[in-house]
Amino acid sequence: MVPFTNNVADSVSQLGEVALIQQISRWLGPVSPASPHGIGDDCAVLEPVNSGQQILTVDSVSYGQHFDANVSPEDAGAKLVKRNVSDIAAMGGSPGPAVLALLCGPDVCTQWLERFFFGIRQCCEHYKISLVGGDVSSLARGNFSAVLTLTGQALSPKLRSTAKCGDYIYVTGTLGGSILGKHYQFQPRLAEGQWLAQNPHCSAQMDLTDGLVKDLKSLLPTATHAALDLGTLPIAPAAYTLAKTSGHSALQHACCDGEDYELVVTLDMQVNCQAFEAQWSAQFPDTELRQIGRIRRSSSGGQLIDSATNTALPWSHGFEHLRVP
Amino acid sequence: MVPFTNNVADSVSQLGEVALIQQISRWLGPVSPASPHGIGDDCAVLEPVNSGQQILTVDSVSYGQHFDANVSPEDAGAKLVKRNVSDIAAMGGSPGPAVLALLCGPDVCTQWLERFFFGIRQCCEHYKISLVGGDVSSLARGNFSAVLTLTGQALSPKLRSTAKCGDYIYVTGTLGGSILGKHYQFQPRLAEGQWLAQNPHCSAQMDLTDGLVKDLKSLLPTATHAALDLGTLPIAPAAYTLAKTSGHSALQHACCDGEDYELVVTLDMQVNCQAFEAQWSAQFPDTELRQIGRIRRSSSGGQLIDSATNTALPWSHGFEHLRVP
Repeated sequence: MVPFTNNVADSVSQLGEVALIQQISRWLGPVSPASPHGIGDDCAVLEPVNSGQQILTVDSVSYGQHFDANVSPEDAGAKLVKRNVSDIAAMGGSPGPAVLALLCGPDVCTQWLERFFFGIRQCCEHYKISLVGGDVSSLARGNFSAVLTLTGQALSPKLRSTAKCGDYIYVTGTLGGSILGKHYQFQPRLAEGQWLAQNPHCSAQMDLTDGLVKDLKSLLPTATHAALDLGTLPIAPAAYTLAKTSGHSALQHACCDGEDYELVVTLDMQVNCQAFEAQWSAQFPDTELRQIGRIRRSSSGGQLIDSATNTALPWSHGFEHLRVP
Repeated sequence: MVPFTNNVADSVSQLGEVALIQQISRWLGPVSPASPHGIGDDCAVLEPVNSGQQILTVDSVSYGQHFDANVSPEDAGAKLVKRNVSDIAAMGGSPGPAVLALLCGPDVCTQWLERFFFGIRQCCEHYKISLVGGDVSSLARGNFSAVLTLTGQALSPKLRSTAKCGDYIYVTGTLGGSILGKHYQFQPRLAEGQWLAQNPHCSAQMDLTDGLVKDLKSLLPTATHAALDLGTLPIAPAAYTLAKTSGHSALQHACCDGEDYELVVTLDMQVNCQAFEAQWSAQFPDTELRQIGRIRRSSSGGQLIDSATNTALPWSHGFEHLRVP
């Protein structure tokens, strides 16, 4: 469904800002608490974090970039929330209050927006997120973006920068071909991220948004490379489907496609891999966790290496924002 | 200066996302701390708030909406920060860490963006704000928006909803005609907001962004109106300048124009107005503070009344986002 309408009576311009914000508050229902802990003042007042450290992330969805007319408004709204929840999951945290900035053309359809907010509401209810404030501003006709800033808390936030040479590299779920549906149907690995972060052997953690070959580099300490066992890479069925028509291999899709929203976690050399994998299976019987390689010392550094051939992967770019297609 | 370029070599698409984020971090210099308290991880980890309550606000700037080619990139960047700081000022707080979402077309000019970030940096340095994280995503060509989410802390956050019938209404500075320059040259009333919020007679506070006649309504308790002494309204020189060509009176501009970023504060009936005004003048000799009316009981409610004639102001709308011009 396209977010825009040519009928002024059906558009947000007809409502105006004050009425729209009142509507949004109604649409959100219990997800929108009363001021001062909700919409209606210059700032929202937050409840203190009750344990651990506070964390903060921001992510957006724009029509034509992160979703199109084939994605329902509800799914687009839910995607905005889930993108942020995935970042919280990557730190091993749990989500808290959020604020939303809405940037929309005057021709955004009110009915479309109601359904977009219904998706946000359902998703916020699921993750116990309160939408405590926001901002509405205009763009030119035919434009729609929404930016969510999500707070969270983590007992011990798990970083990217703390991986070490010798660590085992694991990935959750399967990779590649998310454009066929997973890019909005994914479930953030929240419980998984919290569970992994509590493991004393877990050295670093991140979520995959721009593709393994691009994202994994940010996890590598100086003068190391990732030696990947490509035969064990959990390739998604969608990657095989896409490969039939794309001209690329399923493996390439698994390595390069964006928006997997899976977790990559590194475990130190002292871990008993077999015992760890057994604990995982008992805890998350429906979610794959696969050891895909190790971090090795390297003079060049920063590369992804096929451990079978000891050569660099032929693909260096994952999903690249801002590139002219 | 227009933010876009037709020369691909000069555009952000040439840089790509990873290099752009590295550039942004360099451009921001000391305003961009190292991970985990800065850019580089899935979330930023925040230092605990050391006193009072934590507050949170979000505001955006979009090219063509909040600034145009007549505004320098530095001023546009600074405006983004100052819009948010004004919200913190309205609560009587002080600003803390922030996260930034950048939404830009592939044709955004890198040099323009560097200057935009220089404006952000200078302003963040001035207000001691750290930019601890963010997100970069694409829009269609010719589009540029930036959304800043700013945290803050306030000993006792000053709300809109706590004004009472009988309260005196004061406004800082002068009003109207901000389109002639103040809309980006304003200084958020941060010290003023903190000082006012600490006054035991201060019952409520807000900043003026969409015009007095629109914003003041949100301060009125049920079954009250604002009885305004229009003769005392501090009309900005720019409002008179604008009135010469706009077809509207300077008074109307002062009442209706948006983006004044002045504070409206209400003081309870027990205040000694003369003593309070003398204290203000001693504290802020260069900033006007004017009593413009009182909150009175009213059966209809929610209106702005000319106290000289006891009739409603003829203008009901301030600056209206989302309206089709």
